[in-house]
Amino acid sequence: MIEHLPTGSTIGILGGGQLGRMLSVAAARLGYKTHIFEPGAAPAADVAAACTHAAYEDTEALEAFARSVDVVTFEFENVPAEALDRIEAIKPLRPNHKALSVSQDRLTEKDFLSGLGLQTAPYANVESLEDLTEALKTIGCPAILKTRRLGYDGKGQVSITAPEQAEEAFDAMKGAPAVLEGFVDFSMEISVIAARGLSGEVSCFDPGQNLHEGGILRRTTVPAPIPARLRTDAVLMAGRILNELDYLGVLGVELFVTSAGLVVNEIAPRVHNSGHWTQNGCAVDQFEQHIRAVTGWPLGDGSRHADVVMENLIGDDMERVPALAADHTVALHLYGKTETRPGRKMGHANRIGPRSA
Amino acid sequence: MIEHLPTGSTIGILGGGQLGRMLSVAAARLGYKTHIFEPGAAPAADVAAACTHAAYEDTEALEAFARSVDVVTFEFENVPAEALDRIEAIKPLRPNHKALSVSQDRLTEKDFLSGLGLQTAPYANVESLEDLTEALKTIGCPAILKTRRLGYDGKGQVSITAPEQAEEAFDAMKGAPAVLEGFVDFSMEISVIAARGLSGEVSCFDPGQNLHEGGILRRTTVPAPIPARLRTDAVLMAGRILNELDYLGVLGVELFVTSAGLVVNEIAPRVHNSGHWTQNGCAVDQFEQHIRAVTGWPLGDGSRHADVVMENLIGDDMERVPALAADHTVALHLYGKTETRPGRKMGHANRIGPRSA
Repeated sequence: MIEHLPTGSTIGILGGGQLGRMLSVAAARLGYKTHIFEPGAAPAADVAAACTHAAYEDTEALEAFARSVDVVTFEFENVPAEALDRIEAIKPLRPNHKALSVSQDRLTEKDFLSGLGLQTAPYANVESLEDLTEALKTIGCPAILKTRRLGYDGKGQVSITAPEQAEEAFDAMKGAPAVLEGFVDFSMEISVIAARGLSGEVSCFDPGQNLHEGGILRRTTVPAPIPARLRTDAVLMAGRILNELDYLGVLGVELFVTSAGLVVNEIAPRVHNSGHWTQNGCAVDQFEQHIRAVTGWPLGDGSRHADVVMENLIGDDMERVPALAADHTVALHLYGKTETRPGRKMGHANRIGPRSA
Repeated sequence: MIEHLPTGSTIGILGGGQLGRMLSVAAARLGYKTHIFEPGAAPAADVAAACTHAAYEDTEALEAFARSVDVVTFEFENVPAEALDRIEAIKPLRPNHKALSVSQDRLTEKDFLSGLGLQTAPYANVESLEDLTEALKTIGCPAILKTRRLGYDGKGQVSITAPEQAEEAFDAMKGAPAVLEGFVDFSMEISVIAARGLSGEVSCFDPGQNLHEGGILRRTTVPAPIPARLRTDAVLMAGRILNELDYLGVLGVELFVTSAGLVVNEIAPRVHNSGHWTQNGCAVDQFEQHIRAVTGWPLGDGSRHADVVMENLIGDDMERVPALAADHTVALHLYGKTETRPGRKMGHANRIGPRSA
């Protein structure tokens, strides 16, 4: 049996948003302290033993942070590469830098997935207007042009419905390297939240169906209404990705269900919004599963004991909290953010029902 | 609908042990910050936004604490009365001082319960050796002499098996006011974890069976193997106690099952060790239920979706953690205490099974 990190050790978490907050709570449940590193607002700091407020470029703060903890993980995939290198030179980074690098760049990610023989949307590298014009000929319209890096919740993306829009779309990238993606004709989007531990074991939560609005996840319904065969396919694909990356921790895989099978939309090397349902559907949720993986525990029981519909509470949805609080089928999870802004994720509600199948 | 304390408000918690720690996590889930007040070691501080390390006699620290928070609650019932008065003069204390006073004194508590018409063990006030000698004549042996105040986990208690032991037992109280309790012939001990909200609504978790070893709770099994009639009796008794105390929050009621019905052993005006099973057996656990009550939310759904056996991990039980971590029927909850001592509660394990009845 692999020895896990001793009780009372400290886990460093890069990023102090709601994902870091829920990771911190899971870490505490296993007897660990956490130390958050966050340049901006940090709701996670309210439930952490320590918080460093500094920029990722602040080498001194970053190194002091790394020295003060026993292992480092992250809730945010766009940490600059140099910061990650500095941390990895001092303490174990889990998942490792390679896993993060793959998903930090849409082109690298798609090349990686294709290399594994997995289906992705048709795509092409776009470094110039000429690249884009050529790519549109192959991929056709409609298509979507995305920056290779730093996309999040629909930011850094432009839809192209006719070849004449190429120049305007290219200019919108502001010189950033980009990738053109063809549209995929899908019946639904699903996601698998998967975990891999230190001994190489893999555990996946049941796939859920995701509904987006305005590029932001609105709702995840578990189980996803798909045949058992597709459910198994999805889980096997996630397992291959984890193995190939020598991954430690939880990873989210978004998939399109199409007539030609499952197409990988994207992977997120962290706990994932579409896995929040596990907090009320499983004995061990995605946050504890991640902490178990990065501290060397065996993975826990992620089997589903209930059906759950997870709904994000975004901006003014907070006005619904009193009614949701009185609804006995709902478990509420609020992030402690005091300022409500349109598009800001303020919390989520898990609506729980008996397990169907 | 009553307005609840706004998201982002701060809950002050007197006491920073594992109960405060789990309360703090529940508070965070509802969007609140917590501020811990604790004279000693404070595992709760690892998951709190702030912690004041000071004595309850440090008036300045106590008043600064009260001013910095929006409402005050406690995880520890032996906070000195003067400290509570100072706090109540500044901010709402929930549950209120009266509820706490009743259970701070074993004699007051038993008088209160008897006054409600509830059965308790036979008892007598003992202020002198003469009182004790007289009481032993009425109550008989075996009996148990307990200090009226500050008893916890079997401390401050002496068994008396023969009248000749009266003097030695009385001396062991070191002059503290005491109460003599007759033994109760019971088949098992059960407890009810009950909550009362701001609107007066009451909600009880299913009763569990408690097993003690050396005066410390070892195990709680839910559901307790008792007839439905007794289960209802237990819940009704808890409801009467809550109402009479105009109580806000969670209260634990320990009961003996006897051939003459249920006898109240004691009440604890706080979340209770025998309620830890709710973390894995209910959508809303005792910690969230308490936070809901003290912040003015409606009470949540405390219905049981699973059978649970909660086992405390005491002292060297920590050596069993690797095996428990690999057991998929077990959910672990560790308190982050680094120093293992005999008799010290280090964590607990909830063994989860399908709901039986």
